[in-house]
Amino acid sequence: MKVLILGGDGYCGWATALHLSSEGFDVAIADNFLRRLWDHELGSPTLTPIATLPERLRTWEKVSGKVIESFVGDITNWNFISDTIRKYQPDTIVHFAEQRSAPYSMIDREHSVFTQVNNVVGTLNVLYAIRDFVPTCHLIKLGTMGEYGTPNIDIEEGFIEIEHNGRKDRLPFPMQPSSMYHLSKLHDSNNIQFACKIWGIRTTDLHQGIVYGTIISETEKDEKLINRLDYDDVFGTVLNRFCVQAVIGMPLTVYGKGGQTRGMLDIRDTVKCIKIAIMNPAKEGEYRVFNQFTESFNINQIAEKVKTAGDKIGLNVKINHLQNPRVEKEEHYFNPKNTSLLSLGLKPHYLSESLFDSLLNVVVQYKDRIDNRIIAPKVNWRNTHNTRINLSAKE
Amino acid sequence: MKVLILGGDGYCGWATALHLSSEGFDVAIADNFLRRLWDHELGSPTLTPIATLPERLRTWEKVSGKVIESFVGDITNWNFISDTIRKYQPDTIVHFAEQRSAPYSMIDREHSVFTQVNNVVGTLNVLYAIRDFVPTCHLIKLGTMGEYGTPNIDIEEGFIEIEHNGRKDRLPFPMQPSSMYHLSKLHDSNNIQFACKIWGIRTTDLHQGIVYGTIISETEKDEKLINRLDYDDVFGTVLNRFCVQAVIGMPLTVYGKGGQTRGMLDIRDTVKCIKIAIMNPAKEGEYRVFNQFTESFNINQIAEKVKTAGDKIGLNVKINHLQNPRVEKEEHYFNPKNTSLLSLGLKPHYLSESLFDSLLNVVVQYKDRIDNRIIAPKVNWRNTHNTRINLSAKE
Repeated sequence: MKVLILGGDGYCGWATALHLSSEGFDVAIADNFLRRLWDHELGSPTLTPIATLPERLRTWEKVSGKVIESFVGDITNWNFISDTIRKYQPDTIVHFAEQRSAPYSMIDREHSVFTQVNNVVGTLNVLYAIRDFVPTCHLIKLGTMGEYGTPNIDIEEGFIEIEHNGRKDRLPFPMQPSSMYHLSKLHDSNNIQFACKIWGIRTTDLHQGIVYGTIISETEKDEKLINRLDYDDVFGTVLNRFCVQAVIGMPLTVYGKGGQTRGMLDIRDTVKCIKIAIMNPAKEGEYRVFNQFTESFNINQIAEKVKTAGDKIGLNVKINHLQNPRVEKEEHYFNPKNTSLLSLGLKPHYLSESLFDSLLNVVVQYKDRIDNRIIAPKVNWRNTHNTRINLSAKE
Repeated sequence: MKVLILGGDGYCGWATALHLSSEGFDVAIADNFLRRLWDHELGSPTLTPIATLPERLRTWEKVSGKVIESFVGDITNWNFISDTIRKYQPDTIVHFAEQRSAPYSMIDREHSVFTQVNNVVGTLNVLYAIRDFVPTCHLIKLGTMGEYGTPNIDIEEGFIEIEHNGRKDRLPFPMQPSSMYHLSKLHDSNNIQFACKIWGIRTTDLHQGIVYGTIISETEKDEKLINRLDYDDVFGTVLNRFCVQAVIGMPLTVYGKGGQTRGMLDIRDTVKCIKIAIMNPAKEGEYRVFNQFTESFNINQIAEKVKTAGDKIGLNVKINHLQNPRVEKEEHYFNPKNTSLLSLGLKPHYLSESLFDSLLNVVVQYKDRIDNRIIAPKVNWRNTHNTRINLSAKE
């Protein structure tokens, strides 16, 4: 079984590549290293010292005896992605190759337009390449729980049965994304659903929650295999950022009231979910959605958990409520379903148990690399000044 | 009241510009003439001999005494659209400036990507320019009834009250667009809705049906004011195309069973709807949707109407069912609401009365310009060959 991982040098992509290789799949990575470029643009390197992709792959071959092939290029470039797919002939494509930060997409007009064009065009190219060169290939696309927003009804997995004026239909779940990035994922979902219908492409759209942690068993085999861990205000997801703040004695930055509730999962579960989706492919022409998260918490609960864990190791964690830089409901109903992956065999890691081994201990280990100037939020959703923020020179 | 019409040299845009100027608004047009370029790409000129924009504007000034200003450029170019909006300071922007053909978007990968990037980036630029330079300006955006698809429930105007597991919410109507073009309009709708929420922009999204006809009273004042009329397989909408086929004795090309039902309206009603939307603007931060059509017909009914009208003037019209080049339901439920514009005062023209004066007579008048090679469908939704069709050399 040949798996091509688009964006395989990134946070979720790298962990997935190692896990699938370890599990016996033939794995190839395609990546353009844009994520590494954004470290320089924002002045925000990963906490963990990641090796270059060639070093990573050489190390993996040394410790596992397995070879991961790599294709270097940009999937928005048709020649690159069509050549790669034609040459590699994957059975499954796992597509992580998108700009994935909401704040990044909200920096200014250029970053909004970049995010939407990059994500939409890359995904369209993948769809056309599958249609033309590997029509039976299973596409596993990373979407986001953020496509749903926070409706006042239960969130189903992609579709909902609606009864209206005495008639019924099963229709796409109404979506309300809350950033230009989340919108780009919705555009993708809509494009993919159409491609499945007209060309018979098989797709699993994984609406993933907020991922935390960095360690999986494969990355522990050698420090050169370590995964990235972002804690800055732009790419750092909330729990990772809170752990870093706890370790350096900076109050945790809760945006607004902190009642915002989100689905979350450990990166060790991300890689398991991908494997489950590969082993249980969508049918010809099927567009299916799995909600990929294991637990829901609001921001206050996450902060409290980090405080409890931090205090236990003597950190004396404080919590600070900031004015919310985003536009979002700070208190709301939230009840999303996540039964598909569980019924296919996912055995979740839970946050309370994972906080130390997968996260806090890693942060302590690389404490000296923390830059406390890159944590406070600087991108405001309401910003009407259209000035390019000098993101890499913040004090 | 200053109105800036984006795409004001096109089919709906030109009619709207003349009508609003005639009704006393200060009107400016922005256009990049891409629609005229596509005539050359496809080898499919308009039936009616349209003048250049400068000739059109000089003629309009001569017959009406009114000046319509023009800005020549591409709204996907930020410098152009931001300078234009900053300089003109419109109270209302009417946004027609998109690639608007479903078959054009389905020619091949390049045309899909072009359509989505062109439409999404142009609209994002307009939103950012409004935010930064004319924050109280009312945006009137042309969407399409095709965003809805053909659900098995009544179609509401943009939003639907959903009750699910005992809870309720008013949510965006679930959309199922059926071409890369229609998808681009949905992407726009989602982006605009978000921009209204975070920046307080006021928008009316007009989900327009299939427009027919070419004559409005203003274009009749001088032949140099005539509007374009497309009858080719790519840009010609169904009724316009059928009328041309009737006049040259070519059987009407019904795709598939012909049970496909769509909302339709006379171009004289398009211009009235725009005026109604201008006079009744959306509130600050409001994103509202009006379904802009006056009657629904299926393709067989349209063909029958053209046959009846054509036979009356001795044309002996035949109807031919072709294999459907599109992927769409050929028999389905269809009951969309259109009460908003009617309740604001729209007085519709009805198809049976308009067929002769607004359409068949015009086609007869320009009969000698008809090219019968550009009518049969050549773009297939299922096409898996990815060959660029030689669209301008078809025999």
